[in-house]
Amino acid sequence: METKLTHLDKNDNPTIVDVSAKQVTYRTATAQSIVVLPDEVLQHLVNGELQTKKGAVFQTAIIAGIMAAKKTGDLIPLCHPLGMDNCQVTIQMSANNEVVITCTASITAKTGIEMEALVGASMAALTVYDMCKAMSHDIVIKETRLISKTGGKHDFNRS
Amino acid sequence: METKLTHLDKNDNPTIVDVSAKQVTYRTATAQSIVVLPDEVLQHLVNGELQTKKGAVFQTAIIAGIMAAKKTGDLIPLCHPLGMDNCQVTIQMSANNEVVITCTASITAKTGIEMEALVGASMAALTVYDMCKAMSHDIVIKETRLISKTGGKHDFNRS
Amino acid sequence: METKLTHLDKNDNPTIVDVSAKQVTYRTATAQSIVVLPDEVLQHLVNGELQTKKGAVFQTAIIAGIMAAKKTGDLIPLCHPLGMDNCQVTIQMSANNEVVITCTASITAKTGIEMEALVGASMAALTVYDMCKAMSHDIVIKETRLISKTGGKHDFNRS
Amino acid sequence: METKLTHLDKNDNPTIVDVSAKQVTYRTATAQSIVVLPDEVLQHLVNGELQTKKGAVFQTAIIAGIMAAKKTGDLIPLCHPLGMDNCQVTIQMSANNEVVITCTASITAKTGIEMEALVGASMAALTVYDMCKAMSHDIVIKETRLISKTGGKHDFNRS
Amino acid sequence: METKLTHLDKNDNPTIVDVSAKQVTYRTATAQSIVVLPDEVLQHLVNGELQTKKGAVFQTAIIAGIMAAKKTGDLIPLCHPLGMDNCQVTIQMSANNEVVITCTASITAKTGIEMEALVGASMAALTVYDMCKAMSHDIVIKETRLISKTGGKHDFNRS
Amino acid sequence: METKLTHLDKNDNPTIVDVSAKQVTYRTATAQSIVVLPDEVLQHLVNGELQTKKGAVFQTAIIAGIMAAKKTGDLIPLCHPLGMDNCQVTIQMSANNEVVITCTASITAKTGIEMEALVGASMAALTVYDMCKAMSHDIVIKETRLISKTGGKHDFNRS
Repeated sequence: METKLTHLDKNDNPTIVDVSAKQVTYRTATAQSIVVLPDEVLQHLVNGELQTKKGAVFQTAIIAGIMAAKKTGDLIPLCHPLGMDNCQVTIQMSANNEVVITCTASITAKTGIEMEALVGASMAALTVYDMCKAMSHDIVIKETRLISKTGGKHDFNRS
Repeated sequence: METKLTHLDKNDNPTIVDVSAKQVTYRTATAQSIVVLPDEVLQHLVNGELQTKKGAVFQTAIIAGIMAAKKTGDLIPLCHPLGMDNCQVTIQMSANNEVVITCTASITAKTGIEMEALVGASMAALTVYDMCKAMSHDIVIKETRLISKTGGKHDFNRS
Repeated sequence: METKLTHLDKNDNPTIVDVSAKQVTYRTATAQSIVVLPDEVLQHLVNGELQTKKGAVFQTAIIAGIMAAKKTGDLIPLCHPLGMDNCQVTIQMSANNEVVITCTASITAKTGIEMEALVGASMAALTVYDMCKAMSHDIVIKETRLISKTGGKHDFNRS
Repeated sequence: METKLTHLDKNDNPTIVDVSAKQVTYRTATAQSIVVLPDEVLQHLVNGELQTKKGAVFQTAIIAGIMAAKKTGDLIPLCHPLGMDNCQVTIQMSANNEVVITCTASITAKTGIEMEALVGASMAALTVYDMCKAMSHDIVIKETRLISKTGGKHDFNRS
Repeated sequence: METKLTHLDKNDNPTIVDVSAKQVTYRTATAQSIVVLPDEVLQHLVNGELQTKKGAVFQTAIIAGIMAAKKTGDLIPLCHPLGMDNCQVTIQMSANNEVVITCTASITAKTGIEMEALVGASMAALTVYDMCKAMSHDIVIKETRLISKTGGKHDFNRS
Repeated sequence: METKLTHLDKNDNPTIVDVSAKQVTYRTATAQSIVVLPDEVLQHLVNGELQTKKGAVFQTAIIAGIMAAKKTGDLIPLCHPLGMDNCQVTIQMSANNEVVITCTASITAKTGIEMEALVGASMAALTVYDMCKAMSHDIVIKETRLISKTGGKHDFNRS
């Protein structure tokens, strides 16, 4: 981890990090978003899938998450444009009826893929919101965070 | 609010809501994301702006939020493609040192703009994450939610 | 229908049609693509849905079709950029086991929406192809065409 | 070719295929779309190019095909985002006056490029449609299919 | 014209201009880019079109300009996302052998379309550059500017 | 440099250059755009940054330039879709009060990155224009050109 940022230029303008000299390594990242649905939405949960007027929610959200993860370089200004070797989005109900969205991405490249995992989880969460919002505005994306990453300078694993 | 979704077709396929017959009205929405930064990041906060190796964080995040809000129809599968009359993103530190991101969007159209506000706030939050992640992976987007909306069937105001 | 194109300039360069002076009317269009699957793919059809290693095919193709229809102005060089009031994609097996994809779009605008319907049907068809191609390369998109349109200079209905 | 898909999970959600462990090889693919034009359009064919109010048709369609092929990862939900080493679109009139559009793409990567070739051919075909539609709605994209591919697990060549 | 910007907040963050209360009017804008080509490129000019290894230059540049103008809201951070009623790009050789690219756009909306005209002219100019760069790196886009605009608070006409 | 383009096919259609057989090398490019602002805009220059109603100009323009450079393959029809290892945009006032925008990009690939540098510089320049246009329409992008490139067949350095 960097602990000091010395010699900051007073204009301190936005800049991409130069990765020209970095090693190409296999890198993975997993991120998670948790969506809390009120009872008026949860009552439409049938066999682990929310059935709404706009269609089956989780399957649509999974596709939205994968497609958004592929657009990360377009959305986050200082992210490098990257391909992806893999991107999985899974959605499960937790024991206390929260919607747990997990996005795992991997690539063999000079820079990591955690933003792709975070964008994928967030956009899947927002798609759940969109498809349920006709039933309630009291839907909250309770938390979005990185769960683990491998292959960069330091591995990370939230314990 | 809809309270029952009866007669769901067993295939229950994804579908956009037909707004052909809806009234064109002036509509607004405000959404909020809150980002929690650990101390190793917060120490770089100077005069209300985080100064990092990638540049001034909040100003970059504001632009990312506005640009992402404009792409909402591309990101959320069943959102209508819409223009926008206005989109403001503001970022402030709360009393307990959390980063509070607020996105307000407005339009004169047949359908509302709450997903634009939510996408704008979320992408600004993820941009804060991206620009600070070299300093810590323990950054959490604590909460993303709608604050208010006006101009549709029902106004909403989180109290 | 235009029957003569006289006075063509020899450079004859690409140009958008100026619709400034046209009436805003309610316009709809329906297009259809038909995909023919070989037996090694058809055997995976269960309860009207193809189950593959990449997931449920038709539901994914419906979302791809809707999302692509929204991007029509980005894909077809001389199409006007338009919103949409509605976009429905349906997929059904015909009596002779062909996959029939229908896309209907509508808008209240100065120009029609048939390209949106055609792009939506085509991209849904290509998504069916993509999800089944690990099982056979002998998948053919047999036909893509306009079925009907209303609201412009002339209505059209394929009989 | 896969012949059985056993152990399908009942939720059977959409997923990208993980290509992390695959070999980087040189891969090519060629796809074809055929457009059938009615006589009222064909009469505008001069020296192998259709001259219309919207401009020279085939040259515009070639550019549309190449540009769309580059967007394949954005359009087909479960396609990997890929670069391309080459993309050629050619358009010729067949002996029986059909418009034959051929798109060939190549890449050195872990996964193939047949969807890029198919998207390129399809979007060029839809652009021909768009530029001729003021003259007739009875234009049909008669057939879109893969012609050949090399460099993956199995080569394919339609005979 | 604004002549003073007083009371600027010290954070002075980026913001879209709120056009909610503005009148919907018919608006047009014309912009121009001029490209200067060295002799080793100019010798490939035949009948008013540059013939290169990458294809006919001006026709490709016209399409690139129109397609880029449609993406203006995606490219310029604080531009409103707008449709367009019309967009024309023309390219002519001037008396002194410079390439003069003119882009005219129009819309009926609450805000103007001059950025669309400027983006269209600039991207057409950069496409000329791209298609000729194998012949020389000494190609200069000499000047890009607004020529005229109508329909907003003040008309403008460069004399 | 190519000096003759012989054997041009009469249809001379647009085509991407096939780079399959080219070497992967480290490549860089630097481009520059110069914007001339009239006095009514220049008076808002404070500490090297233009302060306007739309926010701080240069910082916004830098982000716009980087984000546009990443979209080059989407904008320039016959450019290869490429990633980037690095992209820096800097903006400085020259001695005679012109805005000098420099964009440097680098990549390790089979083809060069000069179009990315030129698109980045041009879009940053157009963003300066957009943010200042409420103060004057007499803003001119005086010149856009390549400054240097390395790593391809021939290095180039404007002296």
